[in-house]
Formats: sequence, C-alpha cells, structure tokens
Amino acid sequence: MLFLPVSTELTGPSWVLSYICGMEQLFSYEQLFSFSKAIFQKIGCTEADAFTATTVLLSADLRGVDSHGVARLSGYVRLWDAKRINASPAIKIIHETPSTAVVDGDSGLGLVVAPAAMQVAIDKAKAVGTGWVSVQNSNHFGIAGIHAMMALPHDMIGIAMTNASALVAPTFSTEKLLGTNPIAVAIPAGEEQAFVADFATTTAANGKLEILQRKNEPTPLGWVQTKEGSPSINAAELKQGGALLPLGGDRDHGSHKGYMLGSIVDIFSAILSGANYGPWVPPFPAYIPMPENMPGKGIGHFFGAMRIDAFRPAADFKTNMDQWIRRFKTAETVKGIDSVIIPGEPETAMEAFRRENGIPLLQAVSDDLKALGQQFEVAL
Amino acid sequence: MLFLPVSTELTGPSWVLSYICGMEQLFSYEQLFSFSKAIFQKIGCTEADAFTATTVLLSADLRGVDSHGVARLSGYVRLWDAKRINASPAIKIIHETPSTAVVDGDSGLGLVVAPAAMQVAIDKAKAVGTGWVSVQNSNHFGIAGIHAMMALPHDMIGIAMTNASALVAPTFSTEKLLGTNPIAVAIPAGEEQAFVADFATTTAANGKLEILQRKNEPTPLGWVQTKEGSPSINAAELKQGGALLPLGGDRDHGSHKGYMLGSIVDIFSAILSGANYGPWVPPFPAYIPMPENMPGKGIGHFFGAMRIDAFRPAADFKTNMDQWIRRFKTAETVKGIDSVIIPGEPETAMEAFRRENGIPLLQAVSDDLKALGQQFEVAL
Repeated sequence: MLFLPVSTELTGPSWVLSYICGMEQLFSYEQLFSFSKAIFQKIGCTEADAFTATTVLLSADLRGVDSHGVARLSGYVRLWDAKRINASPAIKIIHETPSTAVVDGDSGLGLVVAPAAMQVAIDKAKAVGTGWVSVQNSNHFGIAGIHAMMALPHDMIGIAMTNASALVAPTFSTEKLLGTNPIAVAIPAGEEQAFVADFATTTAANGKLEILQRKNEPTPLGWVQTKEGSPSINAAELKQGGALLPLGGDRDHGSHKGYMLGSIVDIFSAILSGANYGPWVPPFPAYIPMPENMPGKGIGHFFGAMRIDAFRPAADFKTNMDQWIRRFKTAETVKGIDSVIIPGEPETAMEAFRRENGIPLLQAVSDDLKALGQQFEVAL
Repeated sequence: MLFLPVSTELTGPSWVLSYICGMEQLFSYEQLFSFSKAIFQKIGCTEADAFTATTVLLSADLRGVDSHGVARLSGYVRLWDAKRINASPAIKIIHETPSTAVVDGDSGLGLVVAPAAMQVAIDKAKAVGTGWVSVQNSNHFGIAGIHAMMALPHDMIGIAMTNASALVAPTFSTEKLLGTNPIAVAIPAGEEQAFVADFATTTAANGKLEILQRKNEPTPLGWVQTKEGSPSINAAELKQGGALLPLGGDRDHGSHKGYMLGSIVDIFSAILSGANYGPWVPPFPAYIPMPENMPGKGIGHFFGAMRIDAFRPAADFKTNMDQWIRRFKTAETVKGIDSVIIPGEPETAMEAFRRENGIPLLQAVSDDLKALGQQFEVAL
C-alpha cells in the first residue's frame, strides 16, 4: 500500500514529482493500456483476457504501486517465453461446496486467473452469504487490492492474498522461506470512499529497497538482515544472501507477528489449494531456475467475498462505516501531519491524478517497454 | 501469543521461573478451576456456562498468557457487579444466511458468548463449507486462540478476533482509537501439532508493559508514544496520556500495517455485527465510565470456520502442513537459537508443563482471588 502523509501537496505535481524521484517520462493511461493489451494479445491471450490482464496490471500504476505495474510487463512476457505461463489457460473449478472452491489456473497469467477466481467467490457470496476460493497453478497476480475491490460494487467485503517466492526469513532464521505475501481487504462505505487495505506482511516491500539502492541510501533498521541474520541497513543486502524481515522487524518489535501473518497467507493460498508453498514457490524472474522437488502446482492465491447484508442491512453498515472513517480522519494528529490516513485514500487520490496527468515511468522502464514493442512490432 | 525461543530449558522449571519473574505461589489447574467455576456460579451463571467460562478463562493461564487468565476473574465479577455483564444471557442468532450469522450476546460473559458463536460458525461450515459469525453485545472473551482452536477437532481452520477498548493510536494520531484487537488462526496438521497463531495487532501487548513497570525497566522504542505522539520508552506512558502503537511501531517500520490490521478486526467484529467500535468500545475496568454516544451494543467479535475438505481432502492438506511445519522448524537459525518456532508450539509446551506442575500466580493475584473467595464464601 502506498501510504504517505496526506498534505496540501497531495494533488499537486510537486508532491508527485518528489515521490517519483528519478522518473522521467509521462505516458497516458490510454497509451499504456493499448500497448500492454496488444502485447498480451501477441503472446496469445484472447482479447478479453488481454483486456483483463491490462486492467489489473495498470491498476498498480494508477494507484502508485509502480513496482507492480507496467514495469513488470516484460517480466510476464519472459515467463511466457520460458513456458512458465500459459497464455490461453482453461481456468476451472476442481472442487467446490456452496461457499468454497478450489480453482486451477492452468498456469495462466495471475492477472487473468485472479479476477476469474474472485468472481467465483462473489457468485458464491450472492448465493450463500460468503464465498472463499483458494487457487493453485497460477502466477503473479499484480496488486492484491484490485482483486479485493471487485467485491465493492456488489456491497460485499473483498479479501485477496497471494504467496510469492521466498525473500523473507522467519523470526530467528537465516533462511528465506516466505514471500512478501500481501493481504488486501476492501470494505464498502456509504458517502465516504471505501476502506482499502493492501499491504505486504513484511516491514517494507522489496520495491522500496530498490528505490534506496538507486539513491544509494541505507534502509532503516528492521527492514533486512544479513545472511548470518544480523541487523543491517544495507539496501542491497538481499543480493548478498540476506533476507527481508517480517512486519515488526525483530523479535522485540513483534516480527513473530509478521512471520505468522505471512505464514497464514502462505497456507491459505497454497496448502488449501495444492499450490507450492514456503521455499518452493516459483520465482518471478524467468532466469531463476525453478525450485527442486516442488510439492504443488504454481503459485497460490486466496480470495474471499462477504455480502454485507448476510450480516446486517447494507445501509446500516455503511452509516457506521462513514462514522468510523470520519472519526479516524478527524482524529488529532502528531505535529506536522494534517490528518490520519484512511487506508486506500492516497491511492484513490493518486489514481485521479494519474488518470488526468499521466503515469510517469523511469527511463529504464520506458526503454524496456520500447524494446518489448520492437520485439512484437507494437508501437508504444 | 507467547513466543519465546525454544531452548533446552523450555520444559524445565528454571525457564518457567525466569519467565514468571515475580510470581510466587503455585496453584493446581484443578484448584483454580473449581474456584473459578464456583465464583461464576455464585454470580448467577448456570453450571454449564460456569464450566465453559472457566475452561476458556484458564486456558490463558495454561498457555502462559497470564494477563488474560484467572488474574482477570475479579475484573469480570466487578463488571457483573456494575450490571455491565448479564450472567444468564439469552444468546441468540438475530440474522443469518447459510454461511453467516450475527449473534447477539445479550451482554453475557464473552467467555460464554464466544464459544456459542464459534459453534454456530462450525455448524455452518459443516453444512456449506465455511461459517462466519459476527457478534454484538458481548464482553471480553479471554484469549482469542482458544476459540479458534475449537475448529481443530472438526478438521477445520478456525479464526477468531475481537475488538477491545481503545488504547492504540493510529499512525500519525495522538488519539487512542483502537484496541489491541487480536487475531487468532488455528490450522490443523497431521502428525505435527496444529499451527496456532494468536497475536495482538500492536507491537506489544499491554501485559508486557505492566511487567516492565513492575521491574521499573524501559520499553524498546516503538511500543508506546507520549500524549503528543513522540517516541517513548516509558513503560508507564499510557497512564500519562500516551498510547500503545500499532504493530510496526512507526511509519518507517510499517505501523500503518498494524493500524490497518487493527481496523479490519474492529470493522469485522463490530460494524458487521452492530457492536461498538473505535473509541466507543466499552472498557474492561468497571470503574471507568462507559463512552458517551455509543453507536452499537457491547463489544464485538468475529469468528470463522473453514472445513478443510471444502477445499481438498483433509489427508492431503495435512501431509502438506506437516511438510511445511518440518521445513520451517528445521530451518537454519541465527546464532544462539536452537530452532525456528512454529506458532502455538511454546503454548502447547507451557500447557503440558503447567498441567503437571501447577500455575504460578503473583502474590497480588492470589491475594485478590482470596478476597474474592471471602466475598462469595468460596475457598481457594
């Protein structure tokens, strides 16, 4: 989750420019959309799947989660090239009850598999109040939040999580056994905008380490450890055998809680579905060999949808949500901060800004996209 | 969650004695059970309710969560005395669908309301795969983990959460708007013992601050803040207008994630059910006045049960869980640590030890219980 102090500069270009430090070129959403969709079609996606994959992928750029957006497009293509992604998957339910299902993604793009699985959860919630879907045989699904948000127009709470390749050491370990394993929860409100939490279960996301590496700056203590498990402030520690740390950072600050959260995401996503878990989750970069003796199929996700009126009349719920949001938003703040942030608020503001003003891409990213375009004869 | 390094001393009295520093008298489980049950009956609970309440309350003492066990018995009695707890509640489902329910606890002991609501979740899971129950009009329910664990014998995953009176400041705020809002998830395994996570969504639980206060020691940075919102290491900061901090501690270390987790617990427990939320949750100490303009009824809880075989054959799931647990347990460790801890492992060891060797109580706690016994003519 993008989570920055809301200030008067939030909607102005100076704030955006300071945030995007080092980014150089602006592209319109429409431009990136038509480019990405064409690329997905070139690798064999149907038009409908390419549309879905592009919508999900670019939702990250719109919402300010630049690490998970179009910058990853060529990574997905390389996975397809390495035959780790099936561009025309037969996504199917392989087991179900009235409120649950396991979906086999048939090695498809997670960007396509995830919305299909979330739709199953929503349909089940329509029928019996809630729907819960665990997914095997998938790939990276972009940002978790966008899938959880699919529930909102149905007056449902949406939940999305996924496991990912291991970068995180459990408390007291030197081994990387968990991914950054994000959790997203989207909750409808009435007049206020929806509450949308979306966060990795680590202290900091890997993308933030990359930004610090580019700036040649240290990390705060509690983000990474050395390969021996000692505290470190080296933003490049992962390249030297170190690991990301679970939310909390160290035992004194509750890292066992981050470790538990990441573990729960891993188990719900992969052991309930029959996907790979722990250190056996397939890597995103296609050049990294697959783990040996994989116990399951592909990457795992977990989705939930809960119909509000399966609990209370939606109008009553929304009245209380509005009161909750307003009470928190107007709470007294520490000096120098204008207001407490409601989860999802900065991303919505960012989306409005970027839809109007364009999406800034690092030179390296736009160069990469142009090379991809040349390979597939698609103009950016 | 009790989460200490597993070491060779774990099962020996020296480890227990060093952990329980300051505790003086040992009581057998049976002794505390018959005393507590008699007290609950004296305030008007049926024998069955008194049995349930005692089982839940003392599970905290057995599992090493001393702050939530029999030390709170007189606190529950004072709430009854203040007419904030109804000893003979008519607990009822006020709304339901095949996979959901809202339960009204009728101001009953949370220790009794919670197991009843969790049973509803389990029954619904038997019928349609999963069950989800939000509870209004309840009181403090002891430790979350014991309710989640009710699912285990049914080959189900159990989930339990509750809100609590506000002690925690959201990121960037100086106001206390959230409780320590714990989350528990219990997941069955095969030959290995179950995975049981149970943790407050703050950096540290309030009980740990009390231990440091007694020892006159400072807290690590990131546990509490002053009333102005500055970092503090004063274990008594809450008494001076300060606040507990969400898991993460500060913005750089992901406190917004702890704030989001605590908020999700609050909303699932109270806004889905019609209980009180945020700063309006009733306090545990009976001498603290109730908040003004309360928007709901009592305290809220949220429970979930997911049948494993609603996703996959339970045997396959358990085989994978055993592999997961063994892989993590045998992971390489940082120097000085014997093994990575699986959530629930230290509590199970503690329970075995205390069932055999007794439960140590602080002098102040046993004095308080004896006074309570005199009041109700029950011998400890």
